[in-house]
Amino acid sequence: MGKDSKDTANSSLEQVSDIHCFGGRQLRYRHRATSLPCTMNFSLFLPPQAERAPVPIVYWLSGLTCTDENFVTKAGAQRVAAELGIALLAPDTSPRGEQVPDDPAAAYDLGLGAGFYVNATQAPWAEHYRMYDYVVDELPSLVASSFAEIDASRAAIMGHSMGGHGALMIALRNPSRYASASAFAPICAPSQCPWGIKAFTHYLGDDRSRWAQYDTCALIAGTEADIPMRVDQGEADQFLEEQLMPEKLVAALPPGYPLSFHRHAGYDHSYFFIASFIEQHLRFHDLYLKANP
Amino acid sequence: MGKDSKDTANSSLEQVSDIHCFGGRQLRYRHRATSLPCTMNFSLFLPPQAERAPVPIVYWLSGLTCTDENFVTKAGAQRVAAELGIALLAPDTSPRGEQVPDDPAAAYDLGLGAGFYVNATQAPWAEHYRMYDYVVDELPSLVASSFAEIDASRAAIMGHSMGGHGALMIALRNPSRYASASAFAPICAPSQCPWGIKAFTHYLGDDRSRWAQYDTCALIAGTEADIPMRVDQGEADQFLEEQLMPEKLVAALPPGYPLSFHRHAGYDHSYFFIASFIEQHLRFHDLYLKANP
Repeated sequence: MGKDSKDTANSSLEQVSDIHCFGGRQLRYRHRATSLPCTMNFSLFLPPQAERAPVPIVYWLSGLTCTDENFVTKAGAQRVAAELGIALLAPDTSPRGEQVPDDPAAAYDLGLGAGFYVNATQAPWAEHYRMYDYVVDELPSLVASSFAEIDASRAAIMGHSMGGHGALMIALRNPSRYASASAFAPICAPSQCPWGIKAFTHYLGDDRSRWAQYDTCALIAGTEADIPMRVDQGEADQFLEEQLMPEKLVAALPPGYPLSFHRHAGYDHSYFFIASFIEQHLRFHDLYLKANP
Repeated sequence: MGKDSKDTANSSLEQVSDIHCFGGRQLRYRHRATSLPCTMNFSLFLPPQAERAPVPIVYWLSGLTCTDENFVTKAGAQRVAAELGIALLAPDTSPRGEQVPDDPAAAYDLGLGAGFYVNATQAPWAEHYRMYDYVVDELPSLVASSFAEIDASRAAIMGHSMGGHGALMIALRNPSRYASASAFAPICAPSQCPWGIKAFTHYLGDDRSRWAQYDTCALIAGTEADIPMRVDQGEADQFLEEQLMPEKLVAALPPGYPLSFHRHAGYDHSYFFIASFIEQHLRFHDLYLKANP
């Protein structure tokens, strides 16, 4: 398993930690990411079933300010993944390192920790801020070549806030790669909210016609795909009205689109909300991952 | 519930946060602790059942370097507590504040974050480092007077590492106050391990005869109580041999003492270990809390 996986096609893959958890293994790796390019960490949970046969994988994309570790320590997802036999991979939320440009004002919503899962086209971001390629292409290729415990062809994607935007947007653009997609409190219309407008202006430039390819509402309105989606939103979320705008997602849905949308009275934007409903999300993905063997 | 509880006998109780979690509420409070004396934070989870009738309470004592928040964010205990109808209270691990002395060397195992749940007798610790009185007397009194949602007479106690030492030691000295006690990777014989010898020397002085009152192995060897206990220990715990010494606890048990001891191959000292078995611990306590209505 993990320790052997260094001896693969990707010789830069280095295991940082390997911790028993719910009968499986919570792993962390460091590698030289070619798409970004910089050294990146990611976290990977392998359920006990992975010792016997390849298991499907769910990618988790985190929100602003997070690294690969927030989900791993706070969401309580390993318990459910260990029951269902699902691997969980959590990448970081932006390129990292001394050579990677950051917002000169060090704002939490631009630069480090705020990659927004796009391929930047503008200076000084364009060289490193290519999280779309990293999540869509590089990581799945690395999984397929390095982890025999995982069946990389059976994948789903989920995330929170900025990562919820990333998960839904990536699934809509790559419906053949994911059995299902889900999000907690996603940024549904980044082209229309302050977080998204700021990030897209810096990363993609002022021409808003280039933004639509990364905007879930714009993508879903024109999609012919029907990848199953689940979205959960807390009604006491402090970012609900100004930044998240789930009502725009619901309004943009093509007739009959398979979106399961759940509002929860009293819940906020925190990992306590995620932990409370992570089991339902993983069981949702399990349904479609098992239907696509 | 929470927000009203400020208007009680303890007028210093201030609610810091109130977050929905698993149908219940994850609360945090700040108050002026008279036993320490300083301003302290504690975290409290109220399960949904507390809205209808008073629920029993389980105290959680954390380990070295922790605050009241580590358990709350990492253990995943709220899910089980919400199912069973149990309140969870996590205090901090030492007195806090500018006026509270710390280790001049700022070591992680003495001073702030390392109260060891004793009443210190030595300078400069004696005025503030009185975590034993705080946990045994002040917090339960505060709970009884301030939270009508909790039946303070039905209590259990548990903890991790230094907090596992605290939980077992406090239960053995106060068997009528707790229905049961449990620990993850407890420091079983603090008088005999480096962490405990250092802390007890500073807090209690060189006279080792004064240490036995805070030493689980010494206490259990002479106890006539039979408070049910559960201890879980990971076999890959990096502190197992030098600091934790569970074999001394097993050897010190009086004949027939109701200790359920579980070793787990591969698990370490982290919260991934705690999260993996927290459900079993809470179900253990639930059994005895429900047997003592």
